[in-house]
Amino acid sequence: MIMAVSFSKIGQKLTTRSGILELMDDLGSAMTTDRPLNMLGGGNPAHIPACNELWRRRMEEILSNGAEFERMVANYDTPQGNDDFLKSIAAYLKAEYSWDVGPENIAVTNGSQSAFFYLFNLLSGEMPDGRVRKILFPLVPEYIGYADQGLHPQSYESVPAAIEERGAHRFKYHINFDALSIGTDIGALCVSRPTNPTGNVITDGEVMRLSAMAKAAGVPLLIDNAYGAPFPNILFADTHLHWEDHIILGMSLSKIGLPSVRTGVILASPEIVQAVSAVNAIVSLSNSTLGQVITAPLIADGTLRRLSTETIMPFYRERSRKAMEWLDAALADVPYRIHESEGALFLWVWFPGLPVSSMELYRRLKERDTLVIPGEYFFFGSGTFAGNHSRECIRLTYSQDEDSVREGIRIIGEEVRNLYS
Amino acid sequence: MIMAVSFSKIGQKLTTRSGILELMDDLGSAMTTDRPLNMLGGGNPAHIPACNELWRRRMEEILSNGAEFERMVANYDTPQGNDDFLKSIAAYLKAEYSWDVGPENIAVTNGSQSAFFYLFNLLSGEMPDGRVRKILFPLVPEYIGYADQGLHPQSYESVPAAIEERGAHRFKYHINFDALSIGTDIGALCVSRPTNPTGNVITDGEVMRLSAMAKAAGVPLLIDNAYGAPFPNILFADTHLHWEDHIILGMSLSKIGLPSVRTGVILASPEIVQAVSAVNAIVSLSNSTLGQVITAPLIADGTLRRLSTETIMPFYRERSRKAMEWLDAALADVPYRIHESEGALFLWVWFPGLPVSSMELYRRLKERDTLVIPGEYFFFGSGTFAGNHSRECIRLTYSQDEDSVREGIRIIGEEVRNLYS
Repeated sequence: MIMAVSFSKIGQKLTTRSGILELMDDLGSAMTTDRPLNMLGGGNPAHIPACNELWRRRMEEILSNGAEFERMVANYDTPQGNDDFLKSIAAYLKAEYSWDVGPENIAVTNGSQSAFFYLFNLLSGEMPDGRVRKILFPLVPEYIGYADQGLHPQSYESVPAAIEERGAHRFKYHINFDALSIGTDIGALCVSRPTNPTGNVITDGEVMRLSAMAKAAGVPLLIDNAYGAPFPNILFADTHLHWEDHIILGMSLSKIGLPSVRTGVILASPEIVQAVSAVNAIVSLSNSTLGQVITAPLIADGTLRRLSTETIMPFYRERSRKAMEWLDAALADVPYRIHESEGALFLWVWFPGLPVSSMELYRRLKERDTLVIPGEYFFFGSGTFAGNHSRECIRLTYSQDEDSVREGIRIIGEEVRNLYS
Repeated sequence: MIMAVSFSKIGQKLTTRSGILELMDDLGSAMTTDRPLNMLGGGNPAHIPACNELWRRRMEEILSNGAEFERMVANYDTPQGNDDFLKSIAAYLKAEYSWDVGPENIAVTNGSQSAFFYLFNLLSGEMPDGRVRKILFPLVPEYIGYADQGLHPQSYESVPAAIEERGAHRFKYHINFDALSIGTDIGALCVSRPTNPTGNVITDGEVMRLSAMAKAAGVPLLIDNAYGAPFPNILFADTHLHWEDHIILGMSLSKIGLPSVRTGVILASPEIVQAVSAVNAIVSLSNSTLGQVITAPLIADGTLRRLSTETIMPFYRERSRKAMEWLDAALADVPYRIHESEGALFLWVWFPGLPVSSMELYRRLKERDTLVIPGEYFFFGSGTFAGNHSRECIRLTYSQDEDSVREGIRIIGEEVRNLYS
């Protein structure tokens, strides 16, 4: 451009090179390049044959079912979502969990990332009376995709996790309830469960306690359930899904294997659903329909739940087991701890006393065609860890090609060993 | 919800019942109800058989082309867009218009509505130095979907159109250049062409003059080309498409007949493309892929351009001709003027001296199962018309079922006649 364009404050915040942009650029390039890469970055789900066969079968059904294909591509839905899909998922959740919910409790967005962008900015920032409210993240590290979503510069508060060391090479984060209080400047709490980036699943007890605190404070609790039950159900621990009407439960079709259909779902009170629909109309007009049409009948008849429990979950559980085995072998000579793998599709590895930042480790690994995500990005908000913990971790995705994951882990071992020696 | 949730200032702005939400709710309900409705509201494109056959053929090709279907649904693209699509459309635009552009000049968003949301808030609102910049709409009435997109409460400036009356029952808006100046508080200019809601196409001379003014002021000119060339090319007048690197040209796959794939495209300088990609990553992670995969080869080989020129444009031109004929018959007894129909898929009808507001007329028509869009919504920003013009117009979409358009026009004639008598 001949002229130098000036961006607004909001514009500067949104266009600063963000962690999520780097992650998605790395991912997109890796998915389109012909160069062999060890892809342990990004969050693309695996291509699981049983899943892909199901999507293909559904598309063939849609094409052969009269004008269903034409209705799917050529009609706008309402900003709330596709009518059949809203009814299907509401009926399913009501039957499966005995919650008193209907289509008025469901809103669809173009990916659950967009739902959280809307919710953060509805519930935090400058209030009509001029005061500023914040989103409180009760456990960081937390999902990189949230880090830059708050439009107000002071809209995030966070509490560093309590670290429980387990054995020689494992650890688990817990919510530090001693440090957690919900002041009047808090607009909502937000937690991902299973947690991105750690594979942690906060316990049922932690959820109930957070829920009670949020309810007492009169603010919503956002639970990002993108990896949780009932689908994709990538949960290796025995935990339960909880919802009450002050909880906003985020779901997604991405991790069942449909990331590019961009379908996020929230379960919430009708008031929140109406608000999200209203934002959708202004920001996006309406949602992408493909994923909703593919899955509506699969949700209704239990196919998606079965696929998740019998195929998707065991696939990732086995991948996780192997990746941990490879890591334990590759890192035998260096200080390391792996976060307990209780769900999702990545491992979180902590190198206590790492001589360089995880950002520098990321760069060195990228030079060797091995992509990971530097941990720095996942530590945001007001809360900071004592010591260097926030610069000593990396996230490793184990959903892609097994050989390249194994090779990537071998290279990580080499690089880290060089650093410590 | 037990608790009353408080929304932020931004939240209140985005959740106030907006015109675009009402429009989309009306539209969505109309598309899913079994009750017969005369649908002259909303903006759903027609189901043109030749278009639908092409989308179906492409989907069959995708399914039979190895694992192309699986790659399409199961891989995230980069936040900029699908690699093949970016290359295809850039190469096409370069060849067709001799512009010096490449994939670095193209960004995809989940619908062009989202692109404008991003751009308005990048280019207007509070600047880093504390001053407020605005988007200047050089000709209102302008697209209802923009009305609530500016997050800053004082971010819109607008100039009322100059009205040229033509014959007894026609008129055309022009840009009132005498009233148009680009102050230092302006961050960008924005105009839709063909204009939503009027079917106006601002002249080549007006475009060149706007472009020169924007360039001189050092700000971008946004041209929303959702109905324009090269596709869907719903242009009945002989006009030209113009682009320079300070122009941000918005395009869309919606009006070729693929509204629910949610694919918007901008052609802009690499600086703007990078900014939009960065916002995409934060707000949406990545884009819906379906529409990009369906159309990439159709853009490359000229099919989409031919379809637009030989099928889509003539279809709407004939619809427009008939709708004007029906209107002239139905309104013979009342004062009315129809805006010249130069493109897009709706007519803009002005009832000088209408005894009620167009909002009230909308309500009365809705009670008779006839949906239109009240004109009030399209008049926004600082500029106001002398007299009641902004409450005397309605938008009529002529893309849906012909019989119901004709019947709707008959009912409009009856209702308006009652009002004037």
